[in-house]
Amino acid sequence: MQEKPLILVTNDDGITAPGIRALIRIMNTIGEVVVVAPDSPQSGMGHAITVDNVLHCNPITIDDGPQIEYNCSGTPADCVKMAKHEILNRVPDICVSGINHGANSSINVIYSGTMSAAVEAGIEGIPAIGFSLLDFNYHADFKQAEEFIKKITLNVLLNGLPDATVLNVNIPKLKKEDIKGVKICRQANGYWKEDFDKRKSPFGKEYYWLSGEFVNRDKGQDTDVWALENGYISVVPVQFDMTAHHAIQKLNQWEL
Amino acid sequence: MQEKPLILVTNDDGITAPGIRALIRIMNTIGEVVVVAPDSPQSGMGHAITVDNVLHCNPITIDDGPQIEYNCSGTPADCVKMAKHEILNRVPDICVSGINHGANSSINVIYSGTMSAAVEAGIEGIPAIGFSLLDFNYHADFKQAEEFIKKITLNVLLNGLPDATVLNVNIPKLKKEDIKGVKICRQANGYWKEDFDKRKSPFGKEYYWLSGEFVNRDKGQDTDVWALENGYISVVPVQFDMTAHHAIQKLNQWEL
Repeated sequence: MQEKPLILVTNDDGITAPGIRALIRIMNTIGEVVVVAPDSPQSGMGHAITVDNVLHCNPITIDDGPQIEYNCSGTPADCVKMAKHEILNRVPDICVSGINHGANSSINVIYSGTMSAAVEAGIEGIPAIGFSLLDFNYHADFKQAEEFIKKITLNVLLNGLPDATVLNVNIPKLKKEDIKGVKICRQANGYWKEDFDKRKSPFGKEYYWLSGEFVNRDKGQDTDVWALENGYISVVPVQFDMTAHHAIQKLNQWEL
Repeated sequence: MQEKPLILVTNDDGITAPGIRALIRIMNTIGEVVVVAPDSPQSGMGHAITVDNVLHCNPITIDDGPQIEYNCSGTPADCVKMAKHEILNRVPDICVSGINHGANSSINVIYSGTMSAAVEAGIEGIPAIGFSLLDFNYHADFKQAEEFIKKITLNVLLNGLPDATVLNVNIPKLKKEDIKGVKICRQANGYWKEDFDKRKSPFGKEYYWLSGEFVNRDKGQDTDVWALENGYISVVPVQFDMTAHHAIQKLNQWEL
């Protein structure tokens, strides 16, 4: 690489979240950093985009780092689109999203705003990684994972990624010295067993909170959930061709 | 099937949209219908779920059909979770979502609220289909596709679907007699070339509309885009294991 790599940073917890601030600090040691991130939390936004409303996007200064920052009223996927088509004057060498406060392993990849930003970048042809730490705490210790995040990012900058693939990286809540290493994994087969919490408003109207428990249906030792439970950082290559290619032959037998 | 099949109907254009009203009419000829759909349009919501806010869900009567209906303040994925875990007392035999006003072929599957409802049902183990008509018009003619929608639904009820797979069905804007048939396809490799429309508010503040043009990078004749352009209904089996399994071996060569 001749010039310093151009790194686009975004997330779904919002531009002031400690997770993205940590990620920006790490990326500042690697290249030229531009941040385009949501102005408010966007957790659980999946791959939402804003089609029925306008978008605001403005320069902002949050700390005294060398990065350039914009906060955007849209979703994580909107932020990536806005960065690529409106803000940046060259295609970034990489897009990193996170560090998410909480896991995006297994089926959570589908609901994750963090990963939707990475996937959007992938669709636009930009190598991309979503980083998540298994710690919902606002004051989570992102320092422990710093070296691993830098190493994985440098690897992607050096080697590129297989076509139409982005990385979903999850980091266990462990001290650096207790992290056993990095494992390339597949997405564990799991789901959320919902248990809606039904309440009454002060005005007597019923409402619900979505609530539930993650169920892992997958006993494989090659899954992200297994890796995380056993002290490893999990790296899952994620694709956005959602075709179940193996099912085509069977469906072709139908009388339609 | 001993008893009448229980059919869950939802969409992303909102419970009063002509597309879902047409789908309800078709499903009423097949089984017992329960509708749980968003109370307002949710286009482009991807696989968003509501984690930072409460949900409202109330019985509603919109027409004199035999179906039972609930409108829900959440996203399409929320509606499916709410239906399965809070409203229905048995697992539905099928979930159908749509009929969407507009295409969900190619990469649109990722942004689509219609498909996110089908995918959510799939994750919960319910056979599911998302239906979309290539006509954004509020007064689109859903009658032309009626027979095909019924046939595909009956096929899924009869044959089931391959494990962890749901169907993405797109219907060209053609008269019934001009539709050439149904093709099982893969998702075309395409993307949206964005072109933000920058404007100024009455108060002088800049804002943007997301806007753009779909680009098909895929010359294959086995894609959904090809089928639709050539007068066929496209059926793509969609999976929610997003692992790029083919990339795992390559990433395992990295020094991490």
